[in-house]
Amino acid sequence: MSSVIGKNIILSVFGESHGDAIGCVIDGLPDGIRLDTERIYAEMQRRAPGRDKTSTPRREADMPRIISGVLDGVTTGAPLAMLIENTNTKSGDYKNVMTVPRPSHSDYPAYVKFGGNNDVRGGGHFSARLTAPLVFAGAIAKQILEEKGVTVGAHISQIGAVKDTAFDKNGVSADVLTALTKKPFAVIDDGAEQKMRDEIERYRLDQNSVGGAIECAAVGLPVGLGGNMFDTVEGRLAQILYGIPAVKGVQFGLGFGFAAANGKAVNDGYEMRDGAVALKSNNNGGVLGGMTSGAPLIVCVAMKPTPSIAAPQDSVNLETMENTVLEIKGRHDPCILPRAVPVVESAVALGILDMMMEQD
Amino acid sequence: MSSVIGKNIILSVFGESHGDAIGCVIDGLPDGIRLDTERIYAEMQRRAPGRDKTSTPRREADMPRIISGVLDGVTTGAPLAMLIENTNTKSGDYKNVMTVPRPSHSDYPAYVKFGGNNDVRGGGHFSARLTAPLVFAGAIAKQILEEKGVTVGAHISQIGAVKDTAFDKNGVSADVLTALTKKPFAVIDDGAEQKMRDEIERYRLDQNSVGGAIECAAVGLPVGLGGNMFDTVEGRLAQILYGIPAVKGVQFGLGFGFAAANGKAVNDGYEMRDGAVALKSNNNGGVLGGMTSGAPLIVCVAMKPTPSIAAPQDSVNLETMENTVLEIKGRHDPCILPRAVPVVESAVALGILDMMMEQD
Amino acid sequence: MSSVIGKNIILSVFGESHGDAIGCVIDGLPDGIRLDTERIYAEMQRRAPGRDKTSTPRREADMPRIISGVLDGVTTGAPLAMLIENTNTKSGDYKNVMTVPRPSHSDYPAYVKFGGNNDVRGGGHFSARLTAPLVFAGAIAKQILEEKGVTVGAHISQIGAVKDTAFDKNGVSADVLTALTKKPFAVIDDGAEQKMRDEIERYRLDQNSVGGAIECAAVGLPVGLGGNMFDTVEGRLAQILYGIPAVKGVQFGLGFGFAAANGKAVNDGYEMRDGAVALKSNNNGGVLGGMTSGAPLIVCVAMKPTPSIAAPQDSVNLETMENTVLEIKGRHDPCILPRAVPVVESAVALGILDMMMEQD
Amino acid sequence: MSSVIGKNIILSVFGESHGDAIGCVIDGLPDGIRLDTERIYAEMQRRAPGRDKTSTPRREADMPRIISGVLDGVTTGAPLAMLIENTNTKSGDYKNVMTVPRPSHSDYPAYVKFGGNNDVRGGGHFSARLTAPLVFAGAIAKQILEEKGVTVGAHISQIGAVKDTAFDKNGVSADVLTALTKKPFAVIDDGAEQKMRDEIERYRLDQNSVGGAIECAAVGLPVGLGGNMFDTVEGRLAQILYGIPAVKGVQFGLGFGFAAANGKAVNDGYEMRDGAVALKSNNNGGVLGGMTSGAPLIVCVAMKPTPSIAAPQDSVNLETMENTVLEIKGRHDPCILPRAVPVVESAVALGILDMMMEQD
Repeated sequence: MSSVIGKNIILSVFGESHGDAIGCVIDGLPDGIRLDTERIYAEMQRRAPGRDKTSTPRREADMPRIISGVLDGVTTGAPLAMLIENTNTKSGDYKNVMTVPRPSHSDYPAYVKFGGNNDVRGGGHFSARLTAPLVFAGAIAKQILEEKGVTVGAHISQIGAVKDTAFDKNGVSADVLTALTKKPFAVIDDGAEQKMRDEIERYRLDQNSVGGAIECAAVGLPVGLGGNMFDTVEGRLAQILYGIPAVKGVQFGLGFGFAAANGKAVNDGYEMRDGAVALKSNNNGGVLGGMTSGAPLIVCVAMKPTPSIAAPQDSVNLETMENTVLEIKGRHDPCILPRAVPVVESAVALGILDMMMEQD
Repeated sequence: MSSVIGKNIILSVFGESHGDAIGCVIDGLPDGIRLDTERIYAEMQRRAPGRDKTSTPRREADMPRIISGVLDGVTTGAPLAMLIENTNTKSGDYKNVMTVPRPSHSDYPAYVKFGGNNDVRGGGHFSARLTAPLVFAGAIAKQILEEKGVTVGAHISQIGAVKDTAFDKNGVSADVLTALTKKPFAVIDDGAEQKMRDEIERYRLDQNSVGGAIECAAVGLPVGLGGNMFDTVEGRLAQILYGIPAVKGVQFGLGFGFAAANGKAVNDGYEMRDGAVALKSNNNGGVLGGMTSGAPLIVCVAMKPTPSIAAPQDSVNLETMENTVLEIKGRHDPCILPRAVPVVESAVALGILDMMMEQD
Repeated sequence: MSSVIGKNIILSVFGESHGDAIGCVIDGLPDGIRLDTERIYAEMQRRAPGRDKTSTPRREADMPRIISGVLDGVTTGAPLAMLIENTNTKSGDYKNVMTVPRPSHSDYPAYVKFGGNNDVRGGGHFSARLTAPLVFAGAIAKQILEEKGVTVGAHISQIGAVKDTAFDKNGVSADVLTALTKKPFAVIDDGAEQKMRDEIERYRLDQNSVGGAIECAAVGLPVGLGGNMFDTVEGRLAQILYGIPAVKGVQFGLGFGFAAANGKAVNDGYEMRDGAVALKSNNNGGVLGGMTSGAPLIVCVAMKPTPSIAAPQDSVNLETMENTVLEIKGRHDPCILPRAVPVVESAVALGILDMMMEQD
Repeated sequence: MSSVIGKNIILSVFGESHGDAIGCVIDGLPDGIRLDTERIYAEMQRRAPGRDKTSTPRREADMPRIISGVLDGVTTGAPLAMLIENTNTKSGDYKNVMTVPRPSHSDYPAYVKFGGNNDVRGGGHFSARLTAPLVFAGAIAKQILEEKGVTVGAHISQIGAVKDTAFDKNGVSADVLTALTKKPFAVIDDGAEQKMRDEIERYRLDQNSVGGAIECAAVGLPVGLGGNMFDTVEGRLAQILYGIPAVKGVQFGLGFGFAAANGKAVNDGYEMRDGAVALKSNNNGGVLGGMTSGAPLIVCVAMKPTPSIAAPQDSVNLETMENTVLEIKGRHDPCILPRAVPVVESAVALGILDMMMEQD
């Protein structure tokens, strides 16, 4: 099991949901970056639980403590380690999952893989809480990217039956993306927010949960990041994005929409615009031949409904090897999407920064 | 740019479409495997062009020459190098793409990235022809996997408006998969074949091309392959799958179908079956918490329409920096899907084998 | 700059000498290991300063706090993070090195590389104090190795003009190695201890420092660890060993003694011994063709004299760009060797464990 | 077993001594390099056997065929594959080594590791012949480095009892290094050549072999290459250097000479020279804190005597498990050093280039 990623910027994530602390080490950060800690905290607040009814009522301080790699607020070039102490945990709520795996969670394969040694309290190292260090690292990556003229932003493109307006694939701007990162509920069409909230509330009242999708964009990228075959922008970003719990699909541009499309309709032609080569359309989501094309990067991830629901579910008892019915107690988000927006942005930002570090 | 992938089995692919030869080196293969060369050739024939009207009339010998790593037909444990000499190429057809990038191809970002030094004849190293070494390596991986009880197979799940029956996610068997790998046109519902062929022919006659999707499954996997965060089965397979030209989306199980789904409907419960723990459903496509769950692995990739179409397309001249209209000559598949089936299987097989090499 | 190493067991080290804390993350540890914390502390004490006159009078608590990856004393298989809070530091002593690089230290190249952003207090991330996390990780590696029948141990083979008896290359035993790890001053010939202490004291009184060499052995290794070309036991161990500050040479078996040797005299023949194949001699230090041969692994590292000496030294002022004379204040070991023994063992143990994790 | 190395420039070596061909793939080379093929051939000739009595009378064409990654003589940025066909091999000479391992060779551990599946003819993939692709890659690396102002060169510093003058560690120049690469027998003190030849001849006539050492230098390096802990110049170069068969020791600057040294005598002070910071001495061999210091890089490797000697040697029969006496037939260098000089240069050049690709 590896919680380490990256070629030039190496992120190592550690911690368990109900352990002493969670955190990360970021190795390979450029030196001389004056960290915008207010911005880091703001990004982490976007992910933090307990802000409204769409999320779990738990409250996490989630205040990161920087251990190393920063001196007088400026990165030193040495590994940056960060720690978030766990202060408010209630392990008792999860005791039964020791023997009865929760459906659609990591419990059963982890039980087999680790022979029962893995920390199961609150999901242990598999908990979505481990996305907090990812957001921390992503906030730093986004700051560095912005100093290089690259802006990353995302919105909830779908929750259950409700869809938001999609990004204008060839016209999305840094302003649009920055505005999204400041919304408490990140949607492009403000009218979609209440409908999505209603959708979530409907499932919550039914002891149920609901899935969705997040669309993320990056603008200002140089042409030619990434590469072909096994160094594609798509493959490198997908590997990080699939590190976010609940992500089950990753697509670029039209993505699965390409399956029903024809070349005449979706090929992205070129034209001269303001004296420079420009794409007439951006169905490829800013990536051609595995490399950035100059058009905005558009990636969309599908997330499954929160597996933890209050309704009774069929499972088995791994000790007695008998069928049983599981009732999950504890506090859980009926929909993970609103809090996952900065997590998706972070994964994309980290992947882009890692690629930009090797740009010649 | 990196054409190298893998942690335990390291695949390094080389060659250009119209260069002397293409090939690969596979480092880390287990020793003592008696290679089934007939099977390797058969797999490569599945990918080879010119078999029928759905593909380009070009004919490639594509006969691999094994250079090293095999003695008396058995792997030695040393790097296995393979070469396919290029014999039938017509570079002249592609001369114009030097200055006018083909829409939706790698041409423009490659031009910027490599300053015009990259080999553009036939797409150079970006050509889909480079999937031939991938199929070679995949054929070996599939043979080794089968000796471990794992079977991989895929089918064309969609071409344009025509869809094939989907895999029975929780019930697909080795027999079904093996049968698919022997069909010249890999569909589950034989009735879909003619409809798909008609769809392709319709676009071909219109100087157009069409996209599609391929669904791949693997059965017989041990529980607990992969890991969480950055070692997920999904992320590792996606990175390889995105190495296949034209792939623009990768999803597992319900994938993007999860966005509209609710937990009660799609959570995969457990039950005792034949004395063992089994999943009651497999909406997660055989992966939970980034690890194999014991249910069949189900992954689906979206592929865009072949960018090379005979119809005139808008582009620019990179020398004169003026708008122009491009007419692509040469011979091109109106639909890449039929030939891509073994490529997708190979990517999945290589990824699985790499993970199994570290299984404890 | 990368403080990350390993293929299967990935160690990420962080922290600065005078920062808040130092520590590490160990990713990929097997689950189910009941950590012997007493042993870990004992190993860390072997490296800790302030035990006698051969080392600096500083006292470090150096008590590691395990943050994650361990539950009820047993490894979970998730990343193990460890933190050592810094409690007793006196940054003031080092203020002048900001502008005047200390001879033979990392100061000048680090100043150029990091543009003055690196933490220079006490050497920052370049401090030998960062070997404490290495010893922590090595203590765990040694415990796991011993459960697999592998024992690692080392001794001070030379300090200045004084040499210890060398290992019996073909006959060193686990008992000999274990006994060495329990000596406060690790020498084979007990008579060498006082001579070495005298040598160190002589240089200390002269405001000087002295170098030396450490010879490390590992017994019980399976035959065939490592591999050829770029996967050699020698290369993999050397990369970690050179991560120890002051190491400037790494050799195996006869090492540089091979330069004056002839094949008849130093070739290691075979013989049957107790029904098994055995080496008649072990001039190759247990490694043939990059792989373990079954004979004891014998590696020796050369360490330079502590660069920090009290005597005035020539340097330059990087601000005024003028020659100057530097007098280093603060407390420094006149000889690093006695404390470095467990560090060398740790590097070797980590490298061996990493290789054993991929043994088939 | 991995014959793959490098982070930015990834070299994958393949082939067996008596197989069809040997070769390599170099992934990540910069585009736009006009390859100096004459120089490549010249470098490969330096390593080729059969030039004089110090080496085996075998003759290898060793003419590399570039398969991909080069167009009209210029690198394209795509993987560069190279092949050397084997034309003159006599497998029969080696037949007996199947069952009786040659002392000090890889035979026995390879037999255990690969269960007898490895190609043993001529050493198979473990043969020193595999250094030919390394020299090919190194020649390209040296050319690129020279365009960046970096020159690499080496000399035979010792053969048996005969030593050459050592490099002037702080004063060695590009001219000195370039001159060495043009000598058929690379020594600084021309008077040493005949003595070394005599030494080799003496051992050859005695059916024996002799070891030696090669000292390699690189000048023109920027300050700050490499990094601390696990990214040191020393560690990265050592890992490649240990990939050269027969290398058993690697040291930088004074290396093992540091063991008897004191700080006052060997610390490298600074002074202003021509308006720039300069080192007053270079005992550290151009590396401080794992980073290049601006002084010449000085690395020395020890190589053991050729294990293949004509004299009878003790071994065992792995089939009958009985003691036996082995007489190695075939043609073998009594001393590998003269041909190994360009191999060592190549390893150093590849390591430096890999580091320079990530220099910011």
